[in-house]
Amino acid sequence: MQTRTPQSPGFLIDGLQYCNWSEKIFRELKAGGVTAIHVTICYHENFRETVSNIVRWNGWFERFPDLIFHGRTGEDVRRAAREGRTAVFFGFQNPLPIEDDIGLVEICHTLGARFMQLSYNNQSLLASGCYEAHDTGITRMGREVIREMNRVGMVIDMSHSGERSTLEAIELSQRPIAITHANPASWHKVLRNKSDAVLRALAQGGGMLGLSLYPMHLAGGSNCTLQSFCEMAARTADLMGVEHIGIGSDLCQDQPDSVVEWMRVGRWTKHPESMAGTLGKPVFPQQPEWFRGNLDFGRIAAGLAGAGFAADEIDRIMGLNWLEFFDRSFGPASVAEPAATAIPVARMAGERS
Amino acid sequence: MQTRTPQSPGFLIDGLQYCNWSEKIFRELKAGGVTAIHVTICYHENFRETVSNIVRWNGWFERFPDLIFHGRTGEDVRRAAREGRTAVFFGFQNPLPIEDDIGLVEICHTLGARFMQLSYNNQSLLASGCYEAHDTGITRMGREVIREMNRVGMVIDMSHSGERSTLEAIELSQRPIAITHANPASWHKVLRNKSDAVLRALAQGGGMLGLSLYPMHLAGGSNCTLQSFCEMAARTADLMGVEHIGIGSDLCQDQPDSVVEWMRVGRWTKHPESMAGTLGKPVFPQQPEWFRGNLDFGRIAAGLAGAGFAADEIDRIMGLNWLEFFDRSFGPASVAEPAATAIPVARMAGERS
Repeated sequence: MQTRTPQSPGFLIDGLQYCNWSEKIFRELKAGGVTAIHVTICYHENFRETVSNIVRWNGWFERFPDLIFHGRTGEDVRRAAREGRTAVFFGFQNPLPIEDDIGLVEICHTLGARFMQLSYNNQSLLASGCYEAHDTGITRMGREVIREMNRVGMVIDMSHSGERSTLEAIELSQRPIAITHANPASWHKVLRNKSDAVLRALAQGGGMLGLSLYPMHLAGGSNCTLQSFCEMAARTADLMGVEHIGIGSDLCQDQPDSVVEWMRVGRWTKHPESMAGTLGKPVFPQQPEWFRGNLDFGRIAAGLAGAGFAADEIDRIMGLNWLEFFDRSFGPASVAEPAATAIPVARMAGERS
Repeated sequence: MQTRTPQSPGFLIDGLQYCNWSEKIFRELKAGGVTAIHVTICYHENFRETVSNIVRWNGWFERFPDLIFHGRTGEDVRRAAREGRTAVFFGFQNPLPIEDDIGLVEICHTLGARFMQLSYNNQSLLASGCYEAHDTGITRMGREVIREMNRVGMVIDMSHSGERSTLEAIELSQRPIAITHANPASWHKVLRNKSDAVLRALAQGGGMLGLSLYPMHLAGGSNCTLQSFCEMAARTADLMGVEHIGIGSDLCQDQPDSVVEWMRVGRWTKHPESMAGTLGKPVFPQQPEWFRGNLDFGRIAAGLAGAGFAADEIDRIMGLNWLEFFDRSFGPASVAEPAATAIPVARMAGERS
């Protein structure tokens, strides 16, 4: 691997964003050198509504072909790098688009979905969410859907799932899974962040953690320092192996506050005000000043250097790990390497330069 | 082009079938040497129901990978020929799957749809059907959808549309269109067969006619002779040019009679009995004895030889014309040749060997 300066990683990949998309943001992706992003196209939408969200993205792909295109494979990331554009990969934060119909997994994969969370905060047909009082693990249908996602090449994402469901998903899945946007609970203890047990199992299964930059997931919230974030990254690399971490910023740029409330309650309750007791007022917290959007990834790369990461490790965290994961994950099972041959956990504590 | 015996054409492509699919029929496709078929996956189904039909096909693709696979490009036909399998291409006989949403054209194309009829017997949102008393031509939305189908690479099929709508579609489309299953009305005058004016315009626009083997479209019905059919093919080649005709058998093998009634009335009337006045009892007519199914294409090839077609012309009619049309039609407009460069009408009357 070529060694590059931290400020110009070979591939810059963000493992999750949900911005209020506009030409302005697409131009910022290009200006910020973002090679690929995984974007959320479903929170509470059913199949037909998710299709409408894809139609909206198709409209953007048609209008802004010099900035973005629909990514489907790891090869598309390399193409984006060559062409100076951003490859956009679709994912669902909730399994609602597949309804109760396992056949929709392949349909959604054909339409481009590459990640699907098995549950979003609440119990789903497949798994428990991280805010349920009781996590009953992967359901009967959940086991079947995991097998089908493995078959077609759709990544299981457990970012908003409960601990038991997450551990079971890692165990049941024949291919590595992802937690696209969360941080270690040992750094900042909230229900959305993950225990060391989960993170260790995730890495042992060949999976990926996308480090989140959403203030609710940061120690100190909006006041979290770049140094604290990057030191957390170093400890996480020690725990999981540097090959298993990337960025999953959870950037929600330019969204109105009404969207936070909708994220939380969708249409499953008539009493949204009761959520505020758990999670605070439904407003988007201010991003830390060192990460406001897609122009700021260079600062994170620099911060990682300050925390002792070598240039090749920074390249991995800023994009190469996600790219290799995309290569292994998005094709049919028959042509992909099995979970057992996951890349080794090579990086050890103290090896940092 | 290699000259082959009529009994073993290089590519054997059927431009339309709607069988009651089963392992038995898939094995007959292989035994009959059928390289590719265009199958109907929608008569009266809406978007969500059509998706369920695709799910059903995905199940067959998964269960019978040695027999069939999902075709998306002309290249897939060549792959099918190499691998001794049948490439299955999806099409709609009715534009209902796109609802009133032009964005669903691209969605359906992504899911594999390669043909869509703008109307099926009745008025649609896009065009008039061949059984309407008044054909008002292509609608406002119809014009937009033609443009979008041209852009993404979905073929406009006017098999069940009215004369005026068909002529307007040929005129408006920037890419060649198809009439996948019909015969000349000059041979057998029914509303579903096409006038010489339509067939001439179709060929001039670079389009394709699939000659139908459905008894309602045959002179003499179930008693039509192979010779009469092949002589009709010869006259049609004289009219259109041999490059513009193929087979579109409309084979409905193993379907129960209840399916004919459903084809005719879907759910748009509560009085299905009134249709019998126009079209006779809703029963599937018996196929002519010389074409009962996918094992019988060799007889047609032999019949065409008897009607004076040369071996290379028979290869064209039995598959090569469709293959070249697939090559030109299924990709995005920007990489396809424009309609103006349609292949020339080279074959003239009397050139037959």
